[in-house]
Amino acid sequence: MPTLVLLRHGQSQWNLENRFTGWVDVDLTPEGEAQAKKGGELIKAAGIHIDRAYTSVLTRAIRTLWLALQAAGQVFVPVVNDWRLNERHYGGLTGLNKAETAEKHGEEQVKLWRRSYDIPPPPLAPGGEHDFSKDRRYAGASLPSTESLKTTLERVQPYWDAEIAPHLRAGETLLIAAHGNSLRAIVKLLFNLSDEAIIGVEIPTGNPLVIELDESLKPRSARYLDEARAQPLPQAA
Amino acid sequence: MPTLVLLRHGQSQWNLENRFTGWVDVDLTPEGEAQAKKGGELIKAAGIHIDRAYTSVLTRAIRTLWLALQAAGQVFVPVVNDWRLNERHYGGLTGLNKAETAEKHGEEQVKLWRRSYDIPPPPLAPGGEHDFSKDRRYAGASLPSTESLKTTLERVQPYWDAEIAPHLRAGETLLIAAHGNSLRAIVKLLFNLSDEAIIGVEIPTGNPLVIELDESLKPRSARYLDEARAQPLPQAA
Repeated sequence: MPTLVLLRHGQSQWNLENRFTGWVDVDLTPEGEAQAKKGGELIKAAGIHIDRAYTSVLTRAIRTLWLALQAAGQVFVPVVNDWRLNERHYGGLTGLNKAETAEKHGEEQVKLWRRSYDIPPPPLAPGGEHDFSKDRRYAGASLPSTESLKTTLERVQPYWDAEIAPHLRAGETLLIAAHGNSLRAIVKLLFNLSDEAIIGVEIPTGNPLVIELDESLKPRSARYLDEARAQPLPQAA
Repeated sequence: MPTLVLLRHGQSQWNLENRFTGWVDVDLTPEGEAQAKKGGELIKAAGIHIDRAYTSVLTRAIRTLWLALQAAGQVFVPVVNDWRLNERHYGGLTGLNKAETAEKHGEEQVKLWRRSYDIPPPPLAPGGEHDFSKDRRYAGASLPSTESLKTTLERVQPYWDAEIAPHLRAGETLLIAAHGNSLRAIVKLLFNLSDEAIIGVEIPTGNPLVIELDESLKPRSARYLDEARAQPLPQAA
């Protein structure tokens, strides 16, 4: 049976500092590392055998995957990383403290940028501290300068269709270690959620979400491995 | 310019216990982890940008690669793992203590198995503690039951030709984190060494060997990044 395990990366340094991170390549904190290991231990305890794993090109997601695979005793699993699983690109908000941004632009505006489905922040200015176009991990890619959840989904979907879904159709068990918003995009696709419904879905960090699928990749069941830290599960529309 | 960085995994638990390891999936010791990190720091200090990395399906090599990439600040590099980069399969000696084996079979016989080019130990008995045929990481592969360095090279070479050499011909910089004998196989291929000459080549653990190649993949230069722990370099024949 096709099975998908979604794992959101643990706490990063900028989560701690309450800054808009997006594509900035900050590492996990020790607490984030512990969350990733815990996720792997839960996968092991559940007896789940991963056939293939996916992650973004950002250190906090890659290291979450590595720590989880190590704790699960499955480091030999093939791993693919791709920028299309990156966190949402926060555009001109990248690197800013969330409280300071609210003071500058107003709470309501910041809430719109953070919580609306299709309103992107202002674009990232080229040539600044956080210009990603010179980073060799993005060589050859056509990069966004800002993203809403909607446009995040629009770059996740082609990757999902071309690289991930075929392996599920072959009956594999896949692990995706990624970010709050790239995982939201996948959940919206899989559960066919409305633009409003996906905004309310918050996947906890380090808590593997196991989704069993039927042959047409419709969800048959979904459960968090750490029930004590579960969030309401999406219901297929 | 095509560049190849070879990194031999650091100390494992069975290196410490002086047992024939081969394909048994023992982990690194803390000392082995430190060696891997050191290797990555040397890669970073040398300003080497890895385009793609390869390793075996054995934990000690995979974790050496991960720790090195992390220390080098390059965890986003694509990684491929394949059993054809595994350590030499030690057949019926697998798991045995080296001193006990010498008592049982005689020093000379054990030296022949360890140091000859083409004499494999007796085959591994199927169904025993170290039967790898049931391990899912080898599903679908036609596995050896014992190997000499010669037969190790014979399974490394097709993988080299098909999966590694084309990326070097494209001018990439590749990192291969693997084992004493799979790396020896690669060195023999690259430097066109005789069966006798390769036996004398001992690549130190955790010390990146950087080989610059010309367009036809002939070595132009080779150097260890940690000069204080360098071993005599192979000379192209």
